[in-house]
Amino acid sequence: MLKNDLILKAARGEQVERVPIWLMRQAGRILPEYRATRAKAKNFIEFVKNPELACEVTIQPVDILGVDAAIIFSDILVIPEAMGLPYQMIEAKGPWFENTIKNKADVDAMRIANAGDLDYVIQALRLAKQGLNGRVPLIGFCGAPWTILSYMVEGSGSKTFSKAKQFLYTQPELAHALLDKITKSSINYLKGQIEAGADMVQLFDSWAGVLSEKQYYEFGLKYISQIVEAIKPLAPVTVFAKDAHYALKKISETNCSTIGLDWTIDPAKARTEAGKNVTLQGNTDPCLLYADEKTISKETEIMLKAFGKQRYICNLGHGLYPDIDKEKVKFFVNFVKEFKV
Amino acid sequence: MLKNDLILKAARGEQVERVPIWLMRQAGRILPEYRATRAKAKNFIEFVKNPELACEVTIQPVDILGVDAAIIFSDILVIPEAMGLPYQMIEAKGPWFENTIKNKADVDAMRIANAGDLDYVIQALRLAKQGLNGRVPLIGFCGAPWTILSYMVEGSGSKTFSKAKQFLYTQPELAHALLDKITKSSINYLKGQIEAGADMVQLFDSWAGVLSEKQYYEFGLKYISQIVEAIKPLAPVTVFAKDAHYALKKISETNCSTIGLDWTIDPAKARTEAGKNVTLQGNTDPCLLYADEKTISKETEIMLKAFGKQRYICNLGHGLYPDIDKEKVKFFVNFVKEFKV
Repeated sequence: MLKNDLILKAARGEQVERVPIWLMRQAGRILPEYRATRAKAKNFIEFVKNPELACEVTIQPVDILGVDAAIIFSDILVIPEAMGLPYQMIEAKGPWFENTIKNKADVDAMRIANAGDLDYVIQALRLAKQGLNGRVPLIGFCGAPWTILSYMVEGSGSKTFSKAKQFLYTQPELAHALLDKITKSSINYLKGQIEAGADMVQLFDSWAGVLSEKQYYEFGLKYISQIVEAIKPLAPVTVFAKDAHYALKKISETNCSTIGLDWTIDPAKARTEAGKNVTLQGNTDPCLLYADEKTISKETEIMLKAFGKQRYICNLGHGLYPDIDKEKVKFFVNFVKEFKV
Repeated sequence: MLKNDLILKAARGEQVERVPIWLMRQAGRILPEYRATRAKAKNFIEFVKNPELACEVTIQPVDILGVDAAIIFSDILVIPEAMGLPYQMIEAKGPWFENTIKNKADVDAMRIANAGDLDYVIQALRLAKQGLNGRVPLIGFCGAPWTILSYMVEGSGSKTFSKAKQFLYTQPELAHALLDKITKSSINYLKGQIEAGADMVQLFDSWAGVLSEKQYYEFGLKYISQIVEAIKPLAPVTVFAKDAHYALKKISETNCSTIGLDWTIDPAKARTEAGKNVTLQGNTDPCLLYADEKTISKETEIMLKAFGKQRYICNLGHGLYPDIDKEKVKFFVNFVKEFKV
C-alpha cells in the first residue's frame, strides 16, 4: 500500500536500504508555500482548525523537500482546548491561556477529551492520507502529559516553568489527577488519529528538561509509559523528551519504538544507554542549517556514521527555525538520502 | 583573618566540619531589604553602577539568611559594556542591546576591557570586603565567554539563541576573535576583583546548554580553560555551565576548583564523571523551595547524603526565583547548616 515505508521499517527495527529522514516543523514558515496557505486563515487557531488548510501544509514538505514522511499539521495545545481550557496564539509571543489550572475545582472542571472533540484534526488526517496517496507514511502526534500540564498551569511559555513546577511541589496529588485526565485524553486522541490514517505517532515532551530526574519519572515518564502501552499495539510510538539527557534508558523501558534525541546527546552514548531494541531519531542542531553546504555535509556525515544505517531515523534535534533557508534544508535532506553509510 | 572560611576550605579540598552553603541570586528580589535598596536607584544599570548600593545588597543575605559567603552584586553584562557594547535592562523582559555584533568591523570595534573600566564593581568589592569584616568569604564572578558572546550577538535573551549559534556556524573565525577579546577582558576583570578582595570567583555559563557538545568544547570550554589557568594561582575558580550535562569530565580537566551543577545532574554520576579532585556545588531545584518544610527537608537530606560532607558546597542548581518565600529560604539554609551528614 505504501510506496515508501522506510520510516515504519526503521521504527519496527526492520532492515532498510538507506536512512529515512523527516524534520520536526517541516511544515512551517521556512516554506513560502506554507506562508501562502497560512495567509488564507484569519489567525493561527482558525488555521489549525481548518482541515483543508492543515492538509495542504502537511503534504507540502513531501512535495518540496522530499522527506520520507508527512506529519499532520496541528498544535499540541488542541488537547487542553478539547479538555475545556482554550488558548490563543499571540503573534511573536506564543501560546497564551486566559484561564489556568490553580486548584481542585479547576482540575475537576476539565473533561476527558475524546477523538470526536478533535474532529478537525481527524478530518485533516483523513484528507492528508488521501492526498498522500500512499507516497509516504503519515505521522500523528500529541504533547506528552507533563508538557501539556505545564502550559495549562503556567498559562504561557516560560524559561523556567516555575508556576507549573510549583504546582508539582505543592499539589502533587492534584497534578497526578490532571495528568491522568490528560493521559486518557491523549490516548483517545491518538487512537482516533491512527483510525483516521496515522501510520505512527510521536509524543513531544518539549519541557521535560525543566524537571529534576526524580520528578520527571514521577510526573512525566509514568504517563508517557501509559500512552505507549495503550498505543504500541496499534502503531509505532516515538518519544521525544527534549533535554531529558538522563532518561534514555528509562524511556527505552517504556517499550516505545523510537526515541527522539536533541543535539546535546552523543549518538554512541545514546545507543549504549537505550540499548539495541529501540530506534533512535535525531539529532542535527537546527542551527547547522545556517552553515554553508560544506559544513552541513561534514557534520551530517559524522552524525550519520555515528548512528549507523539500521534502527535510525534522521531528523533534527528540535524543530526547524523559521529563518532557515529552504534550499539548505533541501540540501540536507538530499545529502542524507544519498549518503552511503 | 576570615572567621568562617568553610567555602574556601571546601573549594580547596580541605576537610570541613559541616557543609557550607550559599545561594545563587541570594541578593535579590526575594528579600524586602533588597527591594528597598533597589528602590533608591533610578534603574537597574544605575543600581549596578552604585558601589554603596551594590555593597549593601551584597551583605544583606549574610545578615538575613545566614549563608556562608557573600557574592558581589553585579551583572554579567558589565563586560560587554566595558568592551564598548552598552545594554539596557528592560523591566519584565531582561537585557537588551541596541547594537549587536554582526561582522568583523563590529568585533574590531570592541576593546579589551581592564579592571579600571569596571571601577564601580571594584569599589563595590572593596566596600563589601570592609563591611563583611571577615565574617564570610566574598565571591567575585563574571559570565563565561560563550554566554557573553551570545548576548552580544543575539542582543537579548532567547529560547534558542539561534542568532548567536548562527554566528558560530557561519563566522567561526570571527567568533573566536570575539571570544578571545572577551576572555582577555574577563581575566583582567577577575584579577581586579581578586585584588579588591574577592576570595574566590565563579564563571557563569548560563547558555552552555544550547550548544552541541562539539561546539561547546570549541567555543565554550576552550576559553573557560584559559580563564581558569590565569586565575587559579590567585583564587579558587568555580565553573557553572548550566545544562552542559555531558561536559563534567572535561570541565574537571580545566583544573578548576569547583564545578557547579544544575538539578538535572545526579550527584553520584557527577562525582564519577568529575573525579575526586574537584569540589561539586549545587544542585537543589529552586522550585523545591515552593514546597512545605517537610518536603524541603526530605529532598535536601537525600541530596546532602548523595554529595557527602567533603569536597561539596551546597547551593541551588540555578538562581533563586523572585517569588520564593524568604522564610523557606531561611529554613533551607538552616536545615543544611544543622544537618549531620
